[in-house]
Amino acid sequence: MTAVPSRPEQIRRFLEQNNLAAWIAWRPDELLMLSGYFPFWGASFVICFADAEPLLFLPQIEPRDHIPAGLRVKEYPWGDLKCSDPYSVLVSSIGDELAKARIKPERVGMNPSASRTSLPIQAGEQIPIAEGFAQHLSALTAKPDARRQQAFADLYLRKTPEEVRSIRLANQVANVGLRAFDENLRPGLSEAEVAAAVESAIYTQIGRDGVFHSRAWAMVQSGPNSADGGRFNRSTGRLLQNGDLVLIELATCVNGYWSDLSRTGTVGSPNPELADLLSVVEDAQQSAVDAVRPGVTANEIDSIARDKIAAAGLSSFFTHHTGHHVGFRYHDPGFLIAPGINAKIESGMVLTIEPGAYVPEHRGGARIEDNVLVTPSGHEVLSRTNFITEESR
Amino acid sequence: MTAVPSRPEQIRRFLEQNNLAAWIAWRPDELLMLSGYFPFWGASFVICFADAEPLLFLPQIEPRDHIPAGLRVKEYPWGDLKCSDPYSVLVSSIGDELAKARIKPERVGMNPSASRTSLPIQAGEQIPIAEGFAQHLSALTAKPDARRQQAFADLYLRKTPEEVRSIRLANQVANVGLRAFDENLRPGLSEAEVAAAVESAIYTQIGRDGVFHSRAWAMVQSGPNSADGGRFNRSTGRLLQNGDLVLIELATCVNGYWSDLSRTGTVGSPNPELADLLSVVEDAQQSAVDAVRPGVTANEIDSIARDKIAAAGLSSFFTHHTGHHVGFRYHDPGFLIAPGINAKIESGMVLTIEPGAYVPEHRGGARIEDNVLVTPSGHEVLSRTNFITEESR
Repeated sequence: MTAVPSRPEQIRRFLEQNNLAAWIAWRPDELLMLSGYFPFWGASFVICFADAEPLLFLPQIEPRDHIPAGLRVKEYPWGDLKCSDPYSVLVSSIGDELAKARIKPERVGMNPSASRTSLPIQAGEQIPIAEGFAQHLSALTAKPDARRQQAFADLYLRKTPEEVRSIRLANQVANVGLRAFDENLRPGLSEAEVAAAVESAIYTQIGRDGVFHSRAWAMVQSGPNSADGGRFNRSTGRLLQNGDLVLIELATCVNGYWSDLSRTGTVGSPNPELADLLSVVEDAQQSAVDAVRPGVTANEIDSIARDKIAAAGLSSFFTHHTGHHVGFRYHDPGFLIAPGINAKIESGMVLTIEPGAYVPEHRGGARIEDNVLVTPSGHEVLSRTNFITEESR
Repeated sequence: MTAVPSRPEQIRRFLEQNNLAAWIAWRPDELLMLSGYFPFWGASFVICFADAEPLLFLPQIEPRDHIPAGLRVKEYPWGDLKCSDPYSVLVSSIGDELAKARIKPERVGMNPSASRTSLPIQAGEQIPIAEGFAQHLSALTAKPDARRQQAFADLYLRKTPEEVRSIRLANQVANVGLRAFDENLRPGLSEAEVAAAVESAIYTQIGRDGVFHSRAWAMVQSGPNSADGGRFNRSTGRLLQNGDLVLIELATCVNGYWSDLSRTGTVGSPNPELADLLSVVEDAQQSAVDAVRPGVTANEIDSIARDKIAAAGLSSFFTHHTGHHVGFRYHDPGFLIAPGINAKIESGMVLTIEPGAYVPEHRGGARIEDNVLVTPSGHEVLSRTNFITEESR
């Protein structure tokens, strides 16, 4: 197992192996991975060159205070009331740069899809790319090619040490939210109140130790609602009651990097069926986490969790995969930790491990989810370290 | 000025005038407008027929407790661990329905773009439509046609009474957040803390009076940061200080319907320049609101606000439009309230009115933004009514 190459080196190899001279990206997750820049508006573009430093195009109304050192930056007039078509300025500016570098369209790649993008800092609305903009850019780029797109998606798989540091920070911030979750497991509070307390705890970390963006999506399901937790996660107005299992699904984005966690807490003392359910899931999850190391297959990790849950007679209530890649998005592209997936785990991957069981007859469900870094010798659970100032720098 | 036709009637006319027998939609804002259904996962589809009731396709893992009465529903296997390609099941199911109704692809429309969609209830990740899925559907639909797409976008312009009621509710919930804003304008709190209190106040309205989904994106800028408010809105860790102007930009989504508000508050007593700046903006905004009525043009409303700000010598600091349509999205499609836009305001439209001025030399900026319904005789400011149980039903 080799060390994870630096991100510029991974990009250089990808371009070379795919006979590309450049790659254009605008999706927030791609931009972050390729350039280290996490966009505010989601309307920033990067050209990664095989033979030159990346070039970042920013709308004129973009903030300028968290641009990584060493990036070349050009402005385009999006947000200028007097410019009726900023995109045509942008497209011709991108075209000029490619022409200057004597790069032909067939050697320029891009991902034409807008699906499953990360959300930029301005997270209340999907990316403001003008309708049909991808079509304008298509004149400057090669026809999408499935093999190339797959090779590009593979760039998400192994995180560099710098990226791991940022994902660890996202998990440390998320843990501040999980403490708020524990502190709010009280009868009479609504699911929405508990979730809001968690999100608030995470939002208020902005300004601390290099955190310029911190936003969470917390979804809390209590009592019988937790039995829906394998199909969907949301908060209702239901008030927590003694004896409830309470499931939280928590997505956290810090400076562009994502953590994806679940916990199942209790209010008072759940009945024996629910207590057993929770301990089965805890055991399945810890066993699967313990098995994470380079060389093991996704299917093997999944089986460890799935077999434990089956041994408790709960097989039909564990209805989803055991995990997925995480870090640049809430759900990174890449293979699932799921039955029949024989992909091998490699050092540098960051995976969720999240078995669960949801039993309507018992009016309860449980899931435990951690984010686990694969290390050369085994793994590190990123989501169980606290936010200590020294660690987060 | 005629009364706003019912939504089914608007859709029927649109299909007829555009020689279409059906329209397929999946974007949360389109789905809501066409069927009244606001999706959880963002992976629901509707076929609107010219000659039959709409047909809604839901992933099997979608919640089922807020589906409007009268919608026909079919399930498809997205979320089923054992189905490796749920989208092919969906596409063939949609194709079967069109074939059954003897509708040819050239008479089926859709919007192939994913840009600027509303966020579904599961708002932490952009729509999970598989890469290239639009291409699969394209075999079932007509080639996109600019005139048709424009006619479809025009469907957003005039809201029905039922839709207005829902947008009013979103504004009433948003007002709960604005009260939290006022209560938290205290020296020593950070911008992020104020914003988190606002979002929390809005999230916790879930469960109240028919609110099944309520989520806010609050961005607070204080003191010198408020001078950036015309370019971008975000919260930092800066602590509020006496003398600050404090600008909040607040996007709120309640049950799928959106409110878009801004307020500018003060901490202690701002200096005379900042106090003047705020009162100029308040006057400009109120004057523009007062002018809203059927028949007036967008440009005329814009000029009223812009002239007031220019008369105070602040012309160059009002750098954006005066407003836009709102309701199905944070920013609905449709003409802007901006210089040179001669579109006429019509009854049933819901507009933001949001002039601002941002003066770096004075270390302050201000914007006031309300959501205004155009009524047959004038207007109603939707964003200044409180959340009273009786009103919100």
